[in-house]
Amino acid sequence: MIYITRRERFNSAHKLFREEWSNEQNYETFGKCSNPNWHGHNYELFVTVKGEINPETGFVVDLKELKTIITEKVTNKLDHKNINLDVEFMKGKMASTEVLAVTIFEVLKPHIEAEGAELHSIKLCETENNFVEYFG
Amino acid sequence: MIYITRRERFNSAHKLFREEWSNEQNYETFGKCSNPNWHGHNYELFVTVKGEINPETGFVVDLKELKTIITEKVTNKLDHKNINLDVEFMKGKMASTEVLAVTIFEVLKPHIEAEGAELHSIKLCETENNFVEYFG
Amino acid sequence: MIYITRRERFNSAHKLFREEWSNEQNYETFGKCSNPNWHGHNYELFVTVKGEINPETGFVVDLKELKTIITEKVTNKLDHKNINLDVEFMKGKMASTEVLAVTIFEVLKPHIEAEGAELHSIKLCETENNFVEYFG
Amino acid sequence: MIYITRRERFNSAHKLFREEWSNEQNYETFGKCSNPNWHGHNYELFVTVKGEINPETGFVVDLKELKTIITEKVTNKLDHKNINLDVEFMKGKMASTEVLAVTIFEVLKPHIEAEGAELHSIKLCETENNFVEYFG
Amino acid sequence: MIYITRRERFNSAHKLFREEWSNEQNYETFGKCSNPNWHGHNYELFVTVKGEINPETGFVVDLKELKTIITEKVTNKLDHKNINLDVEFMKGKMASTEVLAVTIFEVLKPHIEAEGAELHSIKLCETENNFVEYFG
Amino acid sequence: MIYITRRERFNSAHKLFREEWSNEQNYETFGKCSNPNWHGHNYELFVTVKGEINPETGFVVDLKELKTIITEKVTNKLDHKNINLDVEFMKGKMASTEVLAVTIFEVLKPHIEAEGAELHSIKLCETENNFVEYFG
Repeated sequence: MIYITRRERFNSAHKLFREEWSNEQNYETFGKCSNPNWHGHNYELFVTVKGEINPETGFVVDLKELKTIITEKVTNKLDHKNINLDVEFMKGKMASTEVLAVTIFEVLKPHIEAEGAELHSIKLCETENNFVEYFG
Repeated sequence: MIYITRRERFNSAHKLFREEWSNEQNYETFGKCSNPNWHGHNYELFVTVKGEINPETGFVVDLKELKTIITEKVTNKLDHKNINLDVEFMKGKMASTEVLAVTIFEVLKPHIEAEGAELHSIKLCETENNFVEYFG
Repeated sequence: MIYITRRERFNSAHKLFREEWSNEQNYETFGKCSNPNWHGHNYELFVTVKGEINPETGFVVDLKELKTIITEKVTNKLDHKNINLDVEFMKGKMASTEVLAVTIFEVLKPHIEAEGAELHSIKLCETENNFVEYFG
Repeated sequence: MIYITRRERFNSAHKLFREEWSNEQNYETFGKCSNPNWHGHNYELFVTVKGEINPETGFVVDLKELKTIITEKVTNKLDHKNINLDVEFMKGKMASTEVLAVTIFEVLKPHIEAEGAELHSIKLCETENNFVEYFG
Repeated sequence: MIYITRRERFNSAHKLFREEWSNEQNYETFGKCSNPNWHGHNYELFVTVKGEINPETGFVVDLKELKTIITEKVTNKLDHKNINLDVEFMKGKMASTEVLAVTIFEVLKPHIEAEGAELHSIKLCETENNFVEYFG
Repeated sequence: MIYITRRERFNSAHKLFREEWSNEQNYETFGKCSNPNWHGHNYELFVTVKGEINPETGFVVDLKELKTIITEKVTNKLDHKNINLDVEFMKGKMASTEVLAVTIFEVLKPHIEAEGAELHSIKLCETENNFVEYFG
């Protein structure tokens, strides 16, 4: 069993905000992350897949195909978008790094399994000081 | 003459957009950077100051004071904000990295001169692949 | 279960040295790390906490509170200090990266549990080429 | 139990290529990685060893000795070499990151055990976007 | 006048070698960089362009067009190639970082001027420890 | 004219302190950098040399020789040392990044000129947020 990881990046706006709360209540809970006019990040996404090495190719999975899956299913839908407003798979969810990481895992899992590999984990970095990991 | 640089960071939303143009015209000129619902970045700002070394302290400038100036005058006003909507010194300007770098230079220059030092340059990084430098 | 990590940094002096040994014996065991007049590092500390996502906030733990705990209990006590001489929780211990990582884990564990979260691991980087991980 | 990691680097040429296939068939499977005249990378290798802390030294393993083992047994044989042509332990194998990581694990394991420590994992980075991990 | 920089990357094989010299003479001059079977690097290329800000767009130059020029004229011809054997604009030249940086400058200059901008400099990084800069 | 840069690193202890001042006066001027029991850093040193390209080798300067000069004359004398106490060329000087950068420039200049090259600049990074540049 070997683990291979692909990094992709996307630049998005978001806010941490509950519509049913006042701005003050949102600020009390989420601090500056609740700014009503949004803020944004350069996100780094690490997708780790595991499997046996194919003896003919030396590969666990073809990285070009893994990159295509991540780009088409996830990063193209997030890049230069507003996570709260523009992204179908985040509708009705909190746009926290935790929830986004779990959702990306769920979006990617069936597509990676269709390639005969297994999704091991998602690591999502919001800044150089904060990141989240999810293993399913 | 010696040059000393302080790095600060801020996370903001913005879009490249001219209000008098249609969404289509904006998209044609600015591509995905014109997304009406905004996107965002982790910006890195490098402020370079030059001067003679004070023989008593070994300093060109007290970095704590330089940090205070950058934070109070610039990064606190940009961090977790929308550059187009929330930032007084960017009102009525294009929120491009170039224009933001020039504006930060102009905002900082008098405050750094008041400390007896000289502002040499601003370097502003929008992503790991793009940055701008301005020397006044 | 999801894992969230906060990075903090501190700059400290230390040496690897047993007082009951001669300088020569220390040099034989610890090499240049035993320099009697100390040396130092920019340490990077990664604290990983795990838990369930709170559905109301989208958080495992409030990162501002996690940052406050790490800063007050650990990094403020190490930053711009001598690890062998100035740090209460390292008194009488070898100032190796391994021992420091284990000690930081033990210092942080009860404070993070008091927040209702669980401390998963400490990663402590001494240089770009060396780091240690401890899982309790 | 604590984990300590040493990073080493090497710069090598390679290609992904099966001699019994035509150039076209290789290109179809391996894309630009099959370029007949080779290409190359700056590889980063992270070797993680685990064990108990020696109470006298505060060490799991002497990093100088770990560095010597990695350098003599692995990186000196790969650095500024052609992985397909010049490296004894890769003869007859696919020069993929996956196969190279597994092989480095197998080469290092007995030498690290001879030091009284245990090899936990190999992480091998081919570019800033791709890396492989192997745990034996 | 403002300066904007775009980073691109390419992974190539090369050697430092004069055909008219023996392997021994090449080794004496170029050391391990003369390995007859090649070695390789992950190169990082920084292209800096200068000009006035267009008041309508806030741009010095459209980064998408700059990226297209760099990719089509330079990095697509170097990436996953052998610099000594596969690259038209390096034929008959030493494949040193210095000569490659000067050549890239000369290749890019007319194409960037055709966009109405001015090429300021090329920075080319061979490893994390070595890089070259050329200003024309 | 082309510019080539070599990075080297060293890990040292220091403090900012004037012996003729009280601890309080030192703290007022230098803050936590005046801690009497020292603190330390992982310093990064970038040495930039300029010259014409030698047409036979493609080199401005042999990087192995440049590395030897930097290591023997500068970094071996600073690494795992106390800058205030252990380093001959810093005796009687303030151990600030500014003064250290100027001193390293003066130490290296004659040795680099003896190689037929010209020292262009020293860049010295104390943390990821602070660095100094000196051009002679």
